[in-house]
This record gives sequence, structure tokens and C-alpha cells, in this order.
Amino acid sequence: MTPFTPKLTEAGLNPNVSVDCVIFGFDGERLKVLLIDRDQVISAKGDEKIYALPGNLIKEDENLDEAAERVLFELTGLEDIFLEQFGSFGDPKRLTKEHDSQWLKQIRAHPEARVITVAYYSLIRADQYELHASGFAKDAIWHDIEELPPLGFDHSEIIESALKELKFKSKYQPIGFELLPEKFTLGQLQKLYEAILNIELDKRNFRRKILKMSFLTPLKEKQIGVPHKPARYYTFDRDKYQSYKSQDFYFTL
Amino acid sequence: MTPFTPKLTEAGLNPNVSVDCVIFGFDGERLKVLLIDRDQVISAKGDEKIYALPGNLIKEDENLDEAAERVLFELTGLEDIFLEQFGSFGDPKRLTKEHDSQWLKQIRAHPEARVITVAYYSLIRADQYELHASGFAKDAIWHDIEELPPLGFDHSEIIESALKELKFKSKYQPIGFELLPEKFTLGQLQKLYEAILNIELDKRNFRRKILKMSFLTPLKEKQIGVPHKPARYYTFDRDKYQSYKSQDFYFTL
Repeated sequence: MTPFTPKLTEAGLNPNVSVDCVIFGFDGERLKVLLIDRDQVISAKGDEKIYALPGNLIKEDENLDEAAERVLFELTGLEDIFLEQFGSFGDPKRLTKEHDSQWLKQIRAHPEARVITVAYYSLIRADQYELHASGFAKDAIWHDIEELPPLGFDHSEIIESALKELKFKSKYQPIGFELLPEKFTLGQLQKLYEAILNIELDKRNFRRKILKMSFLTPLKEKQIGVPHKPARYYTFDRDKYQSYKSQDFYFTL
Repeated sequence: MTPFTPKLTEAGLNPNVSVDCVIFGFDGERLKVLLIDRDQVISAKGDEKIYALPGNLIKEDENLDEAAERVLFELTGLEDIFLEQFGSFGDPKRLTKEHDSQWLKQIRAHPEARVITVAYYSLIRADQYELHASGFAKDAIWHDIEELPPLGFDHSEIIESALKELKFKSKYQPIGFELLPEKFTLGQLQKLYEAILNIELDKRNFRRKILKMSFLTPLKEKQIGVPHKPARYYTFDRDKYQSYKSQDFYFTL
């Protein structure tokens, strides 16, 4: 974590357009989202802090995708992450709440400017990346999606929308297999889907449907040293998986 | 069509953010897209005109959806159309082509400002709306999607992206049934899908798959006075159709 001195010079930044990144992280059990601690305590409520998505104004000379990559890296240290744009948010009042205005006055040259944000999302393995908070991020922390702290701006709405997109995506194409260990049980795969969809799935139904995916390969190997009946390990064929992803395979006329 | 006097005052407009609308129109046979004639001739090529999507800067006091509705209405006269946001486009050089700069100098107070555009799309019946070009649109015209004229800015890319979204959408949920007559044949329905997907579909396969949709109701009535074997008419149940649309029905774990 680098100490941050707020600077009111923002040469080269577009005052009206920002990017925000919703980084979902799966840790093998639960779905989390990456938030930055913007070092602001809500005074009325004592020591409760306000968190925010990693996001900032775009530079005049970069495109939106580049801005998202840069901002994510600058605030959290994450890089080489596949970011997908999923929507833009432009309520004229999205930055005008009291504590948001206060914070903007510390870090922006034009804190009163209206900002439209272009939002990106990604799903990564939460425990396989090192985080390095920097800039105006005092810290970068994974938060359980079900227990979010107070968030700045319209970031709750943006996370909600990203989550909807993620759930939707998981229904029409395989998703997140790359977040599992090299060999995994169908139980682990089910946990991934349950974390994304936030529901409990029927084990038998899940297995029947998921095994229709031709890129899943059963191994001879089974679990050892477990207190229950050892489960079979599976791998997946990355080439087939990718071609599955790029096809429109669930409803082809 | 109202005569347009370019005004270099744009009080209340945000200089950096615009909306653009990709309105697809189905006329019973083909897929079209609505373009405005921005009254600019490419001099080097003689009388070739440049067209554009209906789009303009957002007002400071409106949200993005409101801006899209307003701009579409102001330029083309279309209103009460369901517009869906599908992406934002922000290449720093998207407005810098020579003929685009020239045109912007006529209509914008800050023609050199970088503009990020938030794009919306819709699919409507092309022959059931009256068009009234106004503002800087000299005319508003349906163009066959396969034969587009020269387009300003990055509007080819935006249309391409909207088309991808439309095709994709048609694969996972029923789409466009409301564009068909009250009673229609499966042949007419097939034409709709062929226009959207821009491919020829196998008649037998199409029927087999489409009839699985429980909201399609066969009527006793058949075509009369046709030179071929008369086809049966169908209607669709709008309530069931809507609930179908809102379900995740193609791949539910």
C-alpha cells in the first residue's frame, strides 16, 4: 500500500467519463467482490467505512477497455484480467450524496462534474491473485457478495447489475471452469454454480445436465482419505470448452 | 421535416457523452436499420451522402435512457419505443475523420471535444411508424442492413455490435413475434428469423423447434386463395410469450 496524497490536478483526464470494475472472486466456496477502502468514515455512524468499486476517470488518450485495465491495476494491483463491459450508468444524481461529494472534493479537480461510468466485470479465482492497494485506495479487499459494507455512489446498483449478467451468462454458456483445480469433483463444480447463482442445486439434476457437456472428462482417479464415499475426479478439455463457449449451442434453429 | 439552422450554443448539453440509437425495422421480408441523412455530401466522390445513426449529446439533467428517447424523437419523430442499452463506444479517435470533424464544426459548440457514446437498440415493425426528420437530420430513412450507405463516425461498428446482440438474443429467447400480423403462418415466422439471423433456415427443422414454444397457438383457419397448398394460421399467447421471455428456459440447472 502506497501512501496517497490527494492531488487536485487531473491533467489528461476526462471530467465526465469514468470506468468501474466489478471483479467477482470465487474462493472454492463463496462468491466475493473486490472493493476498495476509500478511507472515509461515515462520521454519524462512528467507525463505519465506505467502500467502493475500483474506478476512476478515463484518460483522454485511452479507450474504454484500456481505461478499465489501467484503473483496476492502479487501485488494486490486479492485471491481465479479462474484463467485459456490461453497461453504463448515468443517473444525473449518482455522485451527489453528501459523503460522496465530500470524498470527490478531496480527489477530483472538478468534483461537481457529472460523471457517466462505463462498467466492466470479471470472474476470477479470489485466492490466486495478490492485491496491492494504491492511489486513493487505502486497501483492496474481497467482500462476500451477501454481506456488503456501505458502498459509495450507485455502486450497489452496479454490482447488482453485474451479478445479473454473471448469472445470466452462466445459464447459456459454461462458465468459470478455469477457476477450479486441475482435477475436480462434480461436487466442487456444483459449488461454483451454487455460488454464482446463489441457490442450492439438486445434486442429481445438476450431474445429469452438466455431464451432457462434452468437454468434461472423467478420470480413473478418485478422492482418497475422505470420510465419505470417494468422488471421481474430472478434468475439462480447454479447447473443447472454448469452442463450446463461442458457439450458440443451447438454442440453434 | 423542419428546416435546421445550426446553432453553436448547446447550453445544458454534456460535451463528452452522447447516445446513439440503432433501430432495426422488419418489414415482413427484410431487416432494415434507421439512419438519418446528415445533409453532407462527400465532395471527393461527387453526390455520395453520409448517413448516421440518430444520436446526439445528452443533457446534463437527464439520465441515459431519457436521453436516448429524447434524441430519437427529436431526430426521427419515433416515440414510445422500447430501447435497450447494449454497449458504450469510446475510441479516442472515433470522431476525428475529416468529414466527421467538418460536420461537427457546424453543429457543436465544442466540435473538438472527445465524445463517448452509449448505444441503444430496438427492433420494430418498419412499416408501422411514421418518420419525421427534424433538427440536424435532413431525412430519416430505413436502409436494408445488407446495403448500408457510407456512415459517419464509428457507426458501422455500432450497428455491427447491435446486430450481434440482436442475433444472440434471438437464440435464447423468443423475439419479434409482436412484429407479425395478428394471425401468421409459420412461413412468415421463419422469414422473421431468417431476416434477423441473415441465413436460410431449414423449413422442417425450424418448424420442429419453434412448435416446442408453448405460446404458439394453431388456428383452424388456413390461408385462402394462395397458389400453393394453404398454410395454417397461428397466433401467439402474449402473456405466455412474456413469461417465456422473462424465464431462463433454455438451460436451467
